[in-house]
Amino acid sequence: MSEFRKRRIQSFLEKHQDRARLLISCPDQPGIVAAVTNFLYERGANIVESNQYSTDPEGGTFFLRIEFDCPHIRVRKEEIENEFSPIAERFSMDWRLSLHTHLKKMAVFVSKEEHCLLELLWEWQAGELLADFALVISNHEHMRETVESFGIPYYYIPVTKETKQEAEQQQIALLKQYDIDVIVLARYMQILSPSFVAQFPSKIINIHHSFLPAFIGARPYEQAYRRGVKLIGATSHYVTDDLDEGPIIEQDVERVDHKHHVEDLKRIGRIIEKTVLVRALKWHLQDRVIIHGNKTIVFK
Amino acid sequence: MSEFRKRRIQSFLEKHQDRARLLISCPDQPGIVAAVTNFLYERGANIVESNQYSTDPEGGTFFLRIEFDCPHIRVRKEEIENEFSPIAERFSMDWRLSLHTHLKKMAVFVSKEEHCLLELLWEWQAGELLADFALVISNHEHMRETVESFGIPYYYIPVTKETKQEAEQQQIALLKQYDIDVIVLARYMQILSPSFVAQFPSKIINIHHSFLPAFIGARPYEQAYRRGVKLIGATSHYVTDDLDEGPIIEQDVERVDHKHHVEDLKRIGRIIEKTVLVRALKWHLQDRVIIHGNKTIVFK
Amino acid sequence: MSEFRKRRIQSFLEKHQDRARLLISCPDQPGIVAAVTNFLYERGANIVESNQYSTDPEGGTFFLRIEFDCPHIRVRKEEIENEFSPIAERFSMDWRLSLHTHLKKMAVFVSKEEHCLLELLWEWQAGELLADFALVISNHEHMRETVESFGIPYYYIPVTKETKQEAEQQQIALLKQYDIDVIVLARYMQILSPSFVAQFPSKIINIHHSFLPAFIGARPYEQAYRRGVKLIGATSHYVTDDLDEGPIIEQDVERVDHKHHVEDLKRIGRIIEKTVLVRALKWHLQDRVIIHGNKTIVFK
Amino acid sequence: MSEFRKRRIQSFLEKHQDRARLLISCPDQPGIVAAVTNFLYERGANIVESNQYSTDPEGGTFFLRIEFDCPHIRVRKEEIENEFSPIAERFSMDWRLSLHTHLKKMAVFVSKEEHCLLELLWEWQAGELLADFALVISNHEHMRETVESFGIPYYYIPVTKETKQEAEQQQIALLKQYDIDVIVLARYMQILSPSFVAQFPSKIINIHHSFLPAFIGARPYEQAYRRGVKLIGATSHYVTDDLDEGPIIEQDVERVDHKHHVEDLKRIGRIIEKTVLVRALKWHLQDRVIIHGNKTIVFK
Repeated sequence: MSEFRKRRIQSFLEKHQDRARLLISCPDQPGIVAAVTNFLYERGANIVESNQYSTDPEGGTFFLRIEFDCPHIRVRKEEIENEFSPIAERFSMDWRLSLHTHLKKMAVFVSKEEHCLLELLWEWQAGELLADFALVISNHEHMRETVESFGIPYYYIPVTKETKQEAEQQQIALLKQYDIDVIVLARYMQILSPSFVAQFPSKIINIHHSFLPAFIGARPYEQAYRRGVKLIGATSHYVTDDLDEGPIIEQDVERVDHKHHVEDLKRIGRIIEKTVLVRALKWHLQDRVIIHGNKTIVFK
Repeated sequence: MSEFRKRRIQSFLEKHQDRARLLISCPDQPGIVAAVTNFLYERGANIVESNQYSTDPEGGTFFLRIEFDCPHIRVRKEEIENEFSPIAERFSMDWRLSLHTHLKKMAVFVSKEEHCLLELLWEWQAGELLADFALVISNHEHMRETVESFGIPYYYIPVTKETKQEAEQQQIALLKQYDIDVIVLARYMQILSPSFVAQFPSKIINIHHSFLPAFIGARPYEQAYRRGVKLIGATSHYVTDDLDEGPIIEQDVERVDHKHHVEDLKRIGRIIEKTVLVRALKWHLQDRVIIHGNKTIVFK
Repeated sequence: MSEFRKRRIQSFLEKHQDRARLLISCPDQPGIVAAVTNFLYERGANIVESNQYSTDPEGGTFFLRIEFDCPHIRVRKEEIENEFSPIAERFSMDWRLSLHTHLKKMAVFVSKEEHCLLELLWEWQAGELLADFALVISNHEHMRETVESFGIPYYYIPVTKETKQEAEQQQIALLKQYDIDVIVLARYMQILSPSFVAQFPSKIINIHHSFLPAFIGARPYEQAYRRGVKLIGATSHYVTDDLDEGPIIEQDVERVDHKHHVEDLKRIGRIIEKTVLVRALKWHLQDRVIIHGNKTIVFK
Repeated sequence: MSEFRKRRIQSFLEKHQDRARLLISCPDQPGIVAAVTNFLYERGANIVESNQYSTDPEGGTFFLRIEFDCPHIRVRKEEIENEFSPIAERFSMDWRLSLHTHLKKMAVFVSKEEHCLLELLWEWQAGELLADFALVISNHEHMRETVESFGIPYYYIPVTKETKQEAEQQQIALLKQYDIDVIVLARYMQILSPSFVAQFPSKIINIHHSFLPAFIGARPYEQAYRRGVKLIGATSHYVTDDLDEGPIIEQDVERVDHKHHVEDLKRIGRIIEKTVLVRALKWHLQDRVIIHGNKTIVFK
């Protein structure tokens, strides 16, 4: 099956070797789209997808994501970036050009709950998760066999109150060593320290097992059971220093009723969690998610 | 159309003149269902629907709702209740026998938002809401014409901080005068005092315009907008002294995204609110909702 | 409340007096967006929303909807249209420029089922349905009182097999007289003749009470009941000569189970029907729906 | 992890060693529930869950599922069955008593699509799927490694038009050899012959990748794409001789739009398929699904 994945990736890379995406945010004003699309047109680019959003047409912030095909983009990238600088300056843009064929390097953190990690492994194995699955870090040993069977390195870094700081140093060292672009907390039941989070701004994606902002913090299914809600949910969000308060990428819910005990909520919740996490991660991997303040703009 | 409604109700009453429902809650132990179903069988009753739930088969609380057809139940009700008493005592039951044809007397409170009241009026008009729609009480005048066009009395009782207590006295007087069984807060934007709530335990149903326990209190759509949630919802619950903390009957959600401003959330929310409120109210009117602690058991 | 509606509309018209939308479809090729956005920029327009879709970047059809604010657009419309012609020709565009403040003239057809019509009336009354609600045509009398209470003319045109052709002539005469832009079949239980449909291409929106293509034709809830489906739905689509085969605009579903009889399915379905119809109609009224072959592109 | 599963199963078996369920269907008449619950009470049974449904209280068919705890049920089963016979005869019941601890023997058929099989394997591995996962039969080799890594035998039986009959004979031989109770077609892309189906009545569960009855037969996602539906779904049903016409157990849908090509529909559909199949299968494994004509009654 690993062969299957390689073929999928290979055909993807070939099919999209000329594709790139341009992400822009800047103060809104007339002429931005005209300037950008002209620039691309003059370079023989064909726009295949374009999304824009303005917080307020009068003096708000403008966000633009353009996906385009441009011959030989992989060799011309730097040249095009240089040529684009004047436009970027003129509109004081915060911008980024990235190749469709550049896969983000991904690290996954996991504790004992396996369902989210397994979903990520299988989606990746199926060639659906367009990331470079670099490593798994866990504070438990028990998923090693499974992860290594996919040919992915597994690092066991136990965490106790005493060793937490040291453990995070080891984790950070590994993340630097693998040059990681995105960190996925796939039900990693440890709270990362502010200093850890500070080193990976907007790069850490968590799945919280509740419909935030309901049931922040520990044991959300127990909280949901006690409150007697009729729907339970899951939320994927970027990690900030405020626990479970980071920008929300995606959420979903499932119906429950009085017959469901905590164990049932957990069982139902697992499916929501893995589905929501994979959806959010795929959008992030394609640069479809833009963080604006404490919210996200998702160009689906 | 009022004719249409009368016909619908009439045919309902004729069709179900022999139908009744028995609601029971008691400590769980073997033999309850056997005793109850035998009792009904010996009286020529035919069970058409039965729902039960036990919080814990060993020493939990047992809940039972049985809907049955029994010839001449309307004249035999008292006799049957007397005959059932020994069984009720034997299992220390908290119980109630009610006729399907006895429609609950309903009062609806409303402020300026009209969508929930309108949905109730139309469902009632269509003969779908099996209640005796007795009156509407509002702290504003502007829905009078609409309500009265349905032949339902409309009482305008303005509320200010100063007059609140007095206003509640007028409201209570009206509710007593009309012998009200259930009070529906259809987006009534006033908080009822504990003394008011205390007089109508488990009889006041509210629709809160958020997916509780998220966004308790005022301006939930503004709160949802600020938090950047990807789903918004509504919650129908019984009113207790703790604001928005009462037992939840029903909830639902709808998907939203970054493009939706507060006004959009409100527009989308209106449909969720009225749908959820009507669903919850119909279950209540059919005695399908049992309050247990701060949760509900809903026998759909 | 009619006052309320007038105020809502008034404030809407004032707020958006400079807003217009440009709809374009043409063979896909590089440079389209650049040309269009330049054109708008040079005329001082500020783009507030833009959506595009291409069936295939290489030689497919390209669709573009741009919403923009342009000073004095109402007086400059014709001039701008003339100036745009060369670009339109260059890219062989099928295009249309429409003012946000121009409300489409709407006719609603209804038979006996009232829920969809009522939803349309209330959404319109609330100022949410940005259309000129011109008239209601029905083959029954019984909704006259309600409709006229909203100040909307009601035309009773009975239809029998014998009188059908003549009845359609009367209907068409009325639609021409009122210069109707969009016809909504709000559970109108008559099949329109091909010659009728031919006169209003892409202008007739129907709500079908099933999840198409399941249960085409008559009595879909009975069909759904017999098949034992676990979800029922509704579909809003444009009317073509093929019964229930026209381009789908929107669909939704609700969960049901073995306990639900046909009457229950109908009751549950009514809420889906009216919700789906209003959603689809609002998109149509804002020119967000583009028909492509037998499908729709919906720029939400 | 296999250890984890064994522990889960072990604790389940211990916890429910006294639990059994009684399934009954018979002509509806008064006294059935009374007779059955008395019978259980006299044997010291405590009812933990009870569900009933009548197609029509007057002369319809009555269905009852009672889950109860009864001391030493595993040794007393035969005795209790004998004692129950008179009651069964009196009401001409079609009935079955089964132990909660008796796990059904399950065979899974798969072709090339792996997602459904993987979900089954992981749910089973996690101890959530209370079945005896006996074997996998496939017309392809490529899932052997994965399946065998779970310690489950994998049989490769290629199928061609010529060899089909012979292949089915091999399959049937295996199913008999393993004494199989339930056959799951986890995206098995072969149509089973009537003679095959006839040997396993009400024992074959299929997942069809559309919202039946829409898009019966081959390539449903291509059909859905061509029709331009706005929701796609999946349906789990019992297999009968009529292709995709068997009794539906469960269905679900997901929203799609014009941007989604066939490949996207398949990707989105995979999640619906595996979720719906697992849900339906779990109900079947717990004897919660009763087939009545061409429909199912599902006692959730």
